[in-house]
Amino acid sequence: MKLYDLAAGSNPRRVRIYLAEKGIEVPSQPVDMMKRENEQPEYRKINPFGKMPALELDDGTILTESMAICRYFEELNPEPPMFGRNPLEKAQVEMWNRRAELNVLIPVAMCFQHTSDFWIGRLEQHKGWGEASRANALASMAIFDEHLKGREFVASDDYTVADITLQCGILLGKGVALKIPEELENLTAWWGRVTSRPTARA
Amino acid sequence: MKLYDLAAGSNPRRVRIYLAEKGIEVPSQPVDMMKRENEQPEYRKINPFGKMPALELDDGTILTESMAICRYFEELNPEPPMFGRNPLEKAQVEMWNRRAELNVLIPVAMCFQHTSDFWIGRLEQHKGWGEASRANALASMAIFDEHLKGREFVASDDYTVADITLQCGILLGKGVALKIPEELENLTAWWGRVTSRPTARA
Repeated sequence: MKLYDLAAGSNPRRVRIYLAEKGIEVPSQPVDMMKRENEQPEYRKINPFGKMPALELDDGTILTESMAICRYFEELNPEPPMFGRNPLEKAQVEMWNRRAELNVLIPVAMCFQHTSDFWIGRLEQHKGWGEASRANALASMAIFDEHLKGREFVASDDYTVADITLQCGILLGKGVALKIPEELENLTAWWGRVTSRPTARA
Repeated sequence: MKLYDLAAGSNPRRVRIYLAEKGIEVPSQPVDMMKRENEQPEYRKINPFGKMPALELDDGTILTESMAICRYFEELNPEPPMFGRNPLEKAQVEMWNRRAELNVLIPVAMCFQHTSDFWIGRLEQHKGWGEASRANALASMAIFDEHLKGREFVASDDYTVADITLQCGILLGKGVALKIPEELENLTAWWGRVTSRPTARA
């Protein structure tokens, strides 16, 4: 088994934190995005969309998409449960994971890709869209703040993939000065809790 | 149980097709987006993100996000399986569902929201981003076409949620002349298969 990895990538980090929480070790192979290795035909055979992470199983089967990779490990290693414990909780973890992804992680990524100098020459930037995405991410953070009042974690009493997604989304914002506003006290307290876990720097 | 629905919405359609495939009937209540009902405080209590669909359970619990709603029903009604039959297949369905969502449905939605006159005055349009998204969606369709060579469905031998997501993404493109290019014969044949299912107009 081998994980094609990108150390600085938000999606590879989701998988690394998940694996660390489960205590699963998988050998990894870095893919050098700076040298555009991920755009070369060799890597496109692994993932035609050219993204990391990708998991190669022992028989050569490839799985891509962070949540697909995590779900595969979850099926084989159900404890501790990180996708919910029963039908309702599983649906709630999926709901909050998607809310974190669609309303925070993706808008933060759009802000990063469309406003940061890092991406000049790597993709076509649309600055107006990047700034609109910043505003969308901040508006969503306020909704998460309200939801987190009196709660330890996002989707259930457990730390789940929904926390990981929100955590990686907010972390990505640091590169474009997109931070949790000070007045969002519940989200700030949650951020302190999740980033003090031993797995946060996986 | 009650489903807050939007007849023309791509995400509500994903849930409706899923339910029709499973033979599950759920009473629905339309939310009038044209009258901005979804932006009013009453609906924001149901879904703070103001989107449809939302499922209200008998005890008042709310589930939002199409795939969370489908997954809830899947847990309670596993047959016929539409999220995969074993750990690997479940991961592959998740992978292809996310590829369809991130690389087709969302880019098509971006193209629709940022280039169609329908959205003028409803959201801030960034036409350049809309057109870039059109190109992204078309590039992804070519990858799906290659993948579908010799396959009946996207993720497994079964019709799954990955097919539903791709199907709803491509359907949404019609409003902005974003169609499957003629030369993509495998995708075109798949489109014929899925849209001739009795559930396609659910």
